[in-house]
Amino acid sequence: MPSGTDVTPVSNMIASRSSKNENTVVDLGTCRVGDGSLVIIAGPCAVESRDQMICLARILKKMGVSIIRGGAFKPRTSPYSFQGLGEEGLKILSAARAETGLPFVTEATDSRSLEIACRYADIIQIGSRNMQNFSLLREAGRSGKPVLLKRGFSSTLEEWLMAAEYIASEGNRKIIFCERGIRTFENYTRNTMDISAIPAIKELSHFPVVADPSHGTGRRSLVGPLARASVAAGADGLMLEVHENPPAALSDGPQSLYPAELEGLLPSLKALHSACVLQGRAV
Amino acid sequence: MPSGTDVTPVSNMIASRSSKNENTVVDLGTCRVGDGSLVIIAGPCAVESRDQMICLARILKKMGVSIIRGGAFKPRTSPYSFQGLGEEGLKILSAARAETGLPFVTEATDSRSLEIACRYADIIQIGSRNMQNFSLLREAGRSGKPVLLKRGFSSTLEEWLMAAEYIASEGNRKIIFCERGIRTFENYTRNTMDISAIPAIKELSHFPVVADPSHGTGRRSLVGPLARASVAAGADGLMLEVHENPPAALSDGPQSLYPAELEGLLPSLKALHSACVLQGRAV
Amino acid sequence: MPSGTDVTPVSNMIASRSSKNENTVVDLGTCRVGDGSLVIIAGPCAVESRDQMICLARILKKMGVSIIRGGAFKPRTSPYSFQGLGEEGLKILSAARAETGLPFVTEATDSRSLEIACRYADIIQIGSRNMQNFSLLREAGRSGKPVLLKRGFSSTLEEWLMAAEYIASEGNRKIIFCERGIRTFENYTRNTMDISAIPAIKELSHFPVVADPSHGTGRRSLVGPLARASVAAGADGLMLEVHENPPAALSDGPQSLYPAELEGLLPSLKALHSACVLQGRAV
Amino acid sequence: MPSGTDVTPVSNMIASRSSKNENTVVDLGTCRVGDGSLVIIAGPCAVESRDQMICLARILKKMGVSIIRGGAFKPRTSPYSFQGLGEEGLKILSAARAETGLPFVTEATDSRSLEIACRYADIIQIGSRNMQNFSLLREAGRSGKPVLLKRGFSSTLEEWLMAAEYIASEGNRKIIFCERGIRTFENYTRNTMDISAIPAIKELSHFPVVADPSHGTGRRSLVGPLARASVAAGADGLMLEVHENPPAALSDGPQSLYPAELEGLLPSLKALHSACVLQGRAV
Repeated sequence: MPSGTDVTPVSNMIASRSSKNENTVVDLGTCRVGDGSLVIIAGPCAVESRDQMICLARILKKMGVSIIRGGAFKPRTSPYSFQGLGEEGLKILSAARAETGLPFVTEATDSRSLEIACRYADIIQIGSRNMQNFSLLREAGRSGKPVLLKRGFSSTLEEWLMAAEYIASEGNRKIIFCERGIRTFENYTRNTMDISAIPAIKELSHFPVVADPSHGTGRRSLVGPLARASVAAGADGLMLEVHENPPAALSDGPQSLYPAELEGLLPSLKALHSACVLQGRAV
Repeated sequence: MPSGTDVTPVSNMIASRSSKNENTVVDLGTCRVGDGSLVIIAGPCAVESRDQMICLARILKKMGVSIIRGGAFKPRTSPYSFQGLGEEGLKILSAARAETGLPFVTEATDSRSLEIACRYADIIQIGSRNMQNFSLLREAGRSGKPVLLKRGFSSTLEEWLMAAEYIASEGNRKIIFCERGIRTFENYTRNTMDISAIPAIKELSHFPVVADPSHGTGRRSLVGPLARASVAAGADGLMLEVHENPPAALSDGPQSLYPAELEGLLPSLKALHSACVLQGRAV
Repeated sequence: MPSGTDVTPVSNMIASRSSKNENTVVDLGTCRVGDGSLVIIAGPCAVESRDQMICLARILKKMGVSIIRGGAFKPRTSPYSFQGLGEEGLKILSAARAETGLPFVTEATDSRSLEIACRYADIIQIGSRNMQNFSLLREAGRSGKPVLLKRGFSSTLEEWLMAAEYIASEGNRKIIFCERGIRTFENYTRNTMDISAIPAIKELSHFPVVADPSHGTGRRSLVGPLARASVAAGADGLMLEVHENPPAALSDGPQSLYPAELEGLLPSLKALHSACVLQGRAV
Repeated sequence: MPSGTDVTPVSNMIASRSSKNENTVVDLGTCRVGDGSLVIIAGPCAVESRDQMICLARILKKMGVSIIRGGAFKPRTSPYSFQGLGEEGLKILSAARAETGLPFVTEATDSRSLEIACRYADIIQIGSRNMQNFSLLREAGRSGKPVLLKRGFSSTLEEWLMAAEYIASEGNRKIIFCERGIRTFENYTRNTMDISAIPAIKELSHFPVVADPSHGTGRRSLVGPLARASVAAGADGLMLEVHENPPAALSDGPQSLYPAELEGLLPSLKALHSACVLQGRAV
């Protein structure tokens, strides 16, 4: 007989900290997320062309970025906006990986794009709008691929944990949470980054958590400060949008860093991370 | 060359009032939504058993309800909660239709459940969590079935219109909007019903709009007042959860009306609707 | 020894329904708020000139409006915006009262304006930004004047009740709640009217509640539908901004009705109210 | 003739960055806020007794805290909760200052408490609930005292700037902004700290900004991570609640640090601050 209660106590869940005290590390071969290091994920919002992507990937590799990001299947508010290059975009990302040795993460938005993405990508991203697309979560779970699970833009921490549980309950333990800002009344920023979600999710779950200050703020000038804040709050990594020419980007230009800006930002992130590690994150 | 702007001007859209001044009426054979009448949709949150559904459908038919609702594929926050009876639930709803002559609406949550639901249901519901599941919207569009499109619990009116545009751009003009409450800081109610969305969506679009005060309030005692408010604000219909024994319901018991409560509520809804019609909704 | 808990159980409060089951009626001599009738409060956002106010008051009197509203002390976001006519505005409102026999409500924003307003006005309004100005609440309580207590734009129902309790605990039982919209992510409207707050506050308290769809929506075209919705939800009255020439208003022009619009709206409000009374608001 | 527009362009304001490019430093004699150093403000939510306060102040002095905080006039949601010791509390704070040489900040909630507080305190706090208490802002401006201006819990950055402008327009340029969290749908934390407000307010204004992660999170376990995040985001200081025995605190116990926790936290804050200074906050 099925139960009528909607929400299972968090303590019984696979994703819950109480079920596993030590941190889960998601191992990608070339890097590990959740082992105490700071992982940088960077790339354009959408893959736009082969030349752009290969050229940018080389630059990112040189800077010390660990994982490439790039969208091929783009969920867009309007049906008439650029929807991404699809499988062609994944081929380009694969070429960038062959060129640099860096793994890549890309978003899947439905069964079909998930099936295709799994053939190419190293990490599957479930986007904010699909955080409660439960079929997609189960399929991502069954794929066995590492999953980067973005927080729904109005989802509670409990709902976020439950979304991870959909993935985990299919036997997949390679989950990376990603805080990307929530929707509030404030309009100066595109979203309001909930930095407290970073330490909170680490209290509640053993899976690693990264932060996306590009979507979280929507403003280039705030990406750096919020990236630093995320590191200081204990994030295992950062996901940053970077574009060789943001004003010409097909999406998310205003929040994309120039490559030189990212290069200028990375040392301060490393310095903060070192300071945190040295201090042992006491209290 | 694809455009980089995310949002097409609302005025160019199929769903927009500016593209079609007269109201669109969704004709279900036995009733019409959007023609100035008040359509009552009622039923349990989830179909639980054959006996329950048939018995309740007969009662609703007698009361003058026009459309039956019942969930067979339930999107649940936790993977361990009751997920609905699936296709078996649709067979039960079909039997209830055969018994009463009333059409029914049921939710589809992914490609597979949409494909199955289309074989049985009269109207396909796209739920709040899937309002920006763009693949599902396109598939619902291609199905040609009438679609009841719930507002995402944190979606703006513009995003809601754009979601309708995904359906409409596939050639489907049988769209019914459904306001079901948005997420705010207030906890006394499950959601905050945005009653202003009813007249606002009628300004912005020619498609009909119904209201769901059951999810909108989450409290049985507030369903009646908010149902009345929705009618007074110009809703083309109401969707109400009713259960023969709410405390035993497998989901949403606290917001489900007893059959006798629904029976007591309907006359006041009709009286208000008549008063509105007589007054011509001036101003 | 004072208790460290922040919030006293609602059931022990003077303002709570559990402490007094029958509705409290606030008697203004010429009209009664909370006795089952529908009270219309109308007037300009701010008193701008003697001629304007007298002329408008005569028009409102003719339409059957029961209470005049007009701001003399205006709380404005910017220190450089029009701050109201001060005591001169109250003299003008008093002249309008002398002319029409209608009582008036005006806002007090601090000790000094409260003291002055009490010398002239029939009802003191505590505005949304001052809902938790606890000193002002206590002083309004001690004044013995009827108080119209607007809900803070991000206040919970519990905080609103507690604000009323500050007034009531000073011995003042002439409190009228006023729902005026809450702040959400939605930008189409100035605020999101929480219509469910109307029946909810009637569950929780015995004091009457009115609704302000002018501030609640911020859009002239939505004031009528939301006024009707408020009546249908059980409001004891409405507060409506009206201006003889909204585009020239010194504040809140876009949400002010033209006098002819108000005149067109009133019959539908009365018709809805009658329908509700006849139906006994069952369920 | 006064203008009807509500909001003056931000660029014309005294508080705006465009009117003064260099940072304003608020000089308290013993320390300076806004000069690039990291200022720690700490103390109990409310002053509870002379012994408590003196003892705690000595401990804080030893740790290197620069400013003492303590509430004497407490704005409380319920009229029946502990309202603070009033002037007696200010005398106790003055004794703590005499003992330690540290200046103190305390909240004023109305004209009367402001007048009293000005006689004792070094900095006047305007609390979140009074951020749009415009009379109080003007009086705080006229007092000439340094003002710590907390952000309203649902106020936009623009409204916050305008509130500062009320103070500045009275000739007072000693303003310190304080981000303390905003109200959202998330309930795991008491508020959602808007860390992006820290760099954003520094873009928009030349006045310094501190952060209050105690109110911002409401949970002891999150105070440390959010304090670190605030420093990394560029805060000029932190305001932290500390109590010798939080479970026995008369208010805000769950968010108050034990003295030993604060002592453990301070080195990591200094290390992060040094790392930020060394990196020059590039990008």
